[in-house]
Formats: sequence, structure tokens, C-alpha cells
Amino acid sequence: MPHEAFMRAALRLAKKGLGRTSPNPAVGVVIVKRGRVIGKGYHRKAGLPHAEIEALGSANDVKGGTLYVTLEPCRHFGRTPPCTEAIIASGIKKVVVGAVDPNPLVRGKGIARLKKAGVAVTSGVLEDECSALNEAYNYYITTGLPFVTLKLASTLDGRIATSKGESQWITGVEARKVVHRMRSLNDAVMIGSGTALKDDPALTVRLIKGRNPIKALLDSAFKTPLSAKVFGNGRVIVFTTRKAPKKKLENARRLGAEVIIAPSSSEGVDTGFVMKELGKREVTSVLAEGGGRLAASLLRRGLVSKAAIFLSPKFLGNDAFASVGALGLKRLKDAPALKEIKGTNIGGDILVEGYIK
Amino acid sequence: MPHEAFMRAALRLAKKGLGRTSPNPAVGVVIVKRGRVIGKGYHRKAGLPHAEIEALGSANDVKGGTLYVTLEPCRHFGRTPPCTEAIIASGIKKVVVGAVDPNPLVRGKGIARLKKAGVAVTSGVLEDECSALNEAYNYYITTGLPFVTLKLASTLDGRIATSKGESQWITGVEARKVVHRMRSLNDAVMIGSGTALKDDPALTVRLIKGRNPIKALLDSAFKTPLSAKVFGNGRVIVFTTRKAPKKKLENARRLGAEVIIAPSSSEGVDTGFVMKELGKREVTSVLAEGGGRLAASLLRRGLVSKAAIFLSPKFLGNDAFASVGALGLKRLKDAPALKEIKGTNIGGDILVEGYIK
Repeated sequence: MPHEAFMRAALRLAKKGLGRTSPNPAVGVVIVKRGRVIGKGYHRKAGLPHAEIEALGSANDVKGGTLYVTLEPCRHFGRTPPCTEAIIASGIKKVVVGAVDPNPLVRGKGIARLKKAGVAVTSGVLEDECSALNEAYNYYITTGLPFVTLKLASTLDGRIATSKGESQWITGVEARKVVHRMRSLNDAVMIGSGTALKDDPALTVRLIKGRNPIKALLDSAFKTPLSAKVFGNGRVIVFTTRKAPKKKLENARRLGAEVIIAPSSSEGVDTGFVMKELGKREVTSVLAEGGGRLAASLLRRGLVSKAAIFLSPKFLGNDAFASVGALGLKRLKDAPALKEIKGTNIGGDILVEGYIK
Repeated sequence: MPHEAFMRAALRLAKKGLGRTSPNPAVGVVIVKRGRVIGKGYHRKAGLPHAEIEALGSANDVKGGTLYVTLEPCRHFGRTPPCTEAIIASGIKKVVVGAVDPNPLVRGKGIARLKKAGVAVTSGVLEDECSALNEAYNYYITTGLPFVTLKLASTLDGRIATSKGESQWITGVEARKVVHRMRSLNDAVMIGSGTALKDDPALTVRLIKGRNPIKALLDSAFKTPLSAKVFGNGRVIVFTTRKAPKKKLENARRLGAEVIIAPSSSEGVDTGFVMKELGKREVTSVLAEGGGRLAASLLRRGLVSKAAIFLSPKFLGNDAFASVGALGLKRLKDAPALKEIKGTNIGGDILVEGYIK
């Protein structure tokens, strides 16, 4: 299938932008004329040209050509002018689209605009793959909330630290590399105060090459010391409550942290509020890295979209720390469950991934 | 490799006996003459002829032939006379052996006897596979203790029942079929009183064809009612302590249960004692099916050889029942750990298997 082969090339280009385009989706384009690729481009970063514009600019004579794009071209003015108009003006004869853009400002309007201007459009080529590439964007653009991936690293019996708090390292270095890659692909990582106090993680990307995410710390009484590693290396947002000492808030802000006073719930900081605030700040994706109390709060409130559970083939017993706090469930059928399960061996550990049903 | 091809045929035969030969190992034999299989046999059941005798009896003129056997032939009188003598008497010219029999009564002596009588012997063909087939026997024959497989069926966060005790079913029917197969391959299944009271399992083989195992119940105060399903369908051994009411012991024995008074430990019935007693009764393999307290006791005392953890892609939170009770570990490096990890998708669940390091 020539359509699919060219779309696959566009997908490969799109992937180069993954983790850098937020709050925009990752998009790739190839332009084909007489069976040959004459232009290509991908969206590199929000504020820089869209993939279509890059590709049109990379080719000499696109008139009469076919443009393959992984995501429906925009037709609205955002940070940049609409791509539909540039395509129409270029003389491109046909556009092949992967996935429709779920953004309410686009959703089919881009395709409609092209057709109206006499450009032939075929859509739905490698649709699932093109759509899956931007699962976080798709969720964010339709809900206003970040796409949350719950990451846990536990033993086979669901324990994240010994009774004495030793947790480094439950999993091996290969699993931790995968976590660092996940960090670099998410806009933000999130931890609760228990993890900050116990593990003092830096939450940066070190084991692979990649950009550091924003760090979100949920700490209702703001007990985490300002000397904690989370306050170094890049943007930090602290969600706390009125229980936090005033002086601490001021000092944290002086250090450059953004501090937001959130309502408190029985579980601590109200995680529903937190996600809305992050959404407002164009944080489209969050990797929730623990601990058990944060995991439980996110699961209880239905804020988790995806889970990535790293299992180390060990046992620590129920006097050790649990990976997920109390969920208050009486019946099995009410348990948060995953679908589209995938198990992978990573070093000596096992990664189980899936989407919340 | 012709040797390996014939040994593989012998292995296939040996597998037919798996789960039925205890306390003997499963063994398969093919006899080859002029490149053709002229006889075959496998050990069907303790007390019935060994594989070598079956194979010799199935062929007409074995003189000058080669006998492939997955396990070194015995040279001692057990339930049946030594196989070495039958092989020598038959005129077999060469014997190809898979694994050496770790039984102290055999261990190389079978091979030595054959050589001394002028039979050529090659050993170590598909040795690992031939040996793995009888992992339970190998352990039992050298330690006098059953080979214990710890089976857990839990959520991804290590929970085996909701806070209200609902546990049926955490895993799907496909996983449960695998458990039934495991039951049919183990001499005994074992549960603690918590599981007996909460789940009232029958512990029989129903979802597949296979024989029922012996049922071992550990119940220090003998709280399980005699109407419980564990007391139906086949042999039951109850391990209890002096705390058990005398009358209950008598009634259980009247029902046909074997009741053994064990020493008690801080964890309940002394599981070390239990395994020794089962070993004395020629129970070579035990599938420990829960719950958390039994699992913890077995892990603490180093009585587990293998683990089979069925993970259902759900979360129940730490107010639910834990798969493994307290282990009293302070340091990660002391955690019981698995090696030779294998992950398998089974229905919608994931099975993680491995051997205790």
C-alpha cells in the first residue's frame, strides 16, 4: 500500500518531535510527487512552524503533489497561521490524513476547508497509530486536563519500600532508564510529600538524553524542606493547602517555585483541583511517580488514564510500604482496572502497561 | 543431531507420565535400531514398570540396539528390580542418558554399572530439559522435603481480596485453568485457615482433566468447620497445634482426615515441621495456594522453591488483603527474590514465574 508506506514515513518524522511539542501534538509530513518524496517536515516545538509548513518549505515545486500528514491540518489561527491556507496556496492536489484532530477548533474543519478549496482528501490512513502517538494531546485537548500516567515500581507483592523506608532501588537500571524516558516524554512529573521526604528524588532525566519535565509536588502541610532535590533543576510547582506555614510559602517562591494553595480533601491536596490547574498551565501530560497515597487519590478520583507498573521479582511482605494506598473498595467489580495490557521484560524486571478501563 | 532427536522423542513420552509417577520421577525411553525406533515406553505410575522395562517389553529384537532414556537407569531394588540389569540382559549395545539421577541411591551408579557390563554409555544429551522435567523430584530426593511452588493470584498492587474478603475471582478463567493444571501436577496443595474460612475452596481439579492432589490445611486452632469443601473429594491432611479442640480432632479423623499435631511458631503452625512430615509421606511437591500468612511463613523460612504469581490488571489499595503477610525485612537486599523470570499473558492476566534465588 503506497499510502501506508508514505504515512509510515510521516509517522517516523512525527515521533522525532515527541515530548517537545506540548501543548501541541507531534505531527509529521511527507510530500510526494510522481511516487517520490520531495519534501518532509515535522513539528519540532510549540511556537516553531507546524509540520506542513516545514515540509512545504523544504520542497521546490510541490504543485500537483500529494501531502501525507499524520494529523488533520489546522484551519485556525493559533501561535501560527492556519496550515490549510498554506496547503491550498501551494498548489498541493491531494492531502492524505492519518487521524482527525480531536481539538474542537479543528475536528474535521481542516479537512472540510481543504475539500471546499478543491483539494482531494483521503483520511484514516494508519489512523490508530497516528492517533495513539498523541494520546496525551487527544485527552488534554478534549478535557482540559492532563493525561496522567500512573507509574509504580514495586515488588511482586506490591511493595515500594521496606518497613524502614528503603526503596532505592527496587527495580534495576534498565527499568529506571525507561522511567527516565517517560519523564522526558511527559510535560510534568508528580510526587507526594511522602516520597519527597523518604526518597528525595531529583525527578530529572539523567540515565538517557532528554529534557527535564516540570516537577509537581503535592504537599498539604508543606513539610518538604526547601533543600530537597525537587527544588533544583528546572520549574517546580508546589500544591499545598492553608495548613502550610506562610513563611515557607514565601521562601519557596523566593527560590523560584510556583506555589499554589489548593483545597484539601480527606486524602490531602485535592488532586482534581491540581489537574485543573495544571491543565490551565498547558501541562498536557503528567507522570505520577508516587507514592501510595498519591496513587490512591488519583485512582479514586478517576484521574488516571494509563498505568506503567514496573515489577521487581521480589517480595517484601505487608509490613513494607504499599504501592497504592487505601481505595475504600468493598467489591471487586469496583476496582480500577486496566485494558489493552502489555507485559514486557526489562532487565530483570517486568513492566505491565495498560489503559484505565 | 540424531541423538537429540531421539532424546526429544523420549522426553515427549516422559511428559505423559508427569503428575502421576510420584514419588518416582517421570521418565521416557525410546529404543533405536538401524536408525529406526523399535520400542518405546514411559513410567506411568509408581509401582508400575519403569520406562526402560516398558520399552524393552514393547520391542521384539533389541539386541545391538541403542536405548535413549531421559534419566539415568536405576541400579537398586525399589518397588521394582533394577533397570540396569534388564538392559544388560537384553543385549542393548548402547545407552544414551539425558540427566544423571540425583537420587543418592543412583547418582552415577546406574551409568557405572552399565559400563562395567560392557554397555556403551553417552550421557548429558538434552540434560537441562531432562533434568527440569523432574525439578520437584530432584529437590525431594536430595532434601527429603517437597518442592514448594508458591502460587499467588493478586491485583497489580498485591491484593488478594477486598477489605470485605471478596476474592472470587481476582483472575480470569484462563488463569484459573492454569492453576488447575498446576494442581494436577503437584502431589499436594496447601492453604492456611484464613483462606479456608474466607474462600472455602474445594482445591480440586475441575476446569481441566487431571487428578486431584492431596489437600494440606494449616490451621493452628483448627477453626475450619468440618463442613468446609476442603474435607470433601480425596485425601486431606490437617496440620494443627495443641490449641485445637480435642473433639474436633476426633471428628475430623472420623471423617477420614489425617490430623497431625505440629509445633506452633509465632506464625502459627510450624511450616518447617509440616514440610518434613509431608516429605516423610512421599509428598514430593506442594502447590501453596495462600493466603498471605502462609505465603509469608514459607518465604521467611526459605521453604519456597518456585513462584507462580498471577497478576490481574486491577488495583484494590492497601485497605484490601495483602498477598504476602509480614516478612520482617529491614533491607531490600534481604528480600526473597526470583531468578529465571518468565512473564506470560494468560487471558487478561499476567503470570510471572521464577525460581527462588
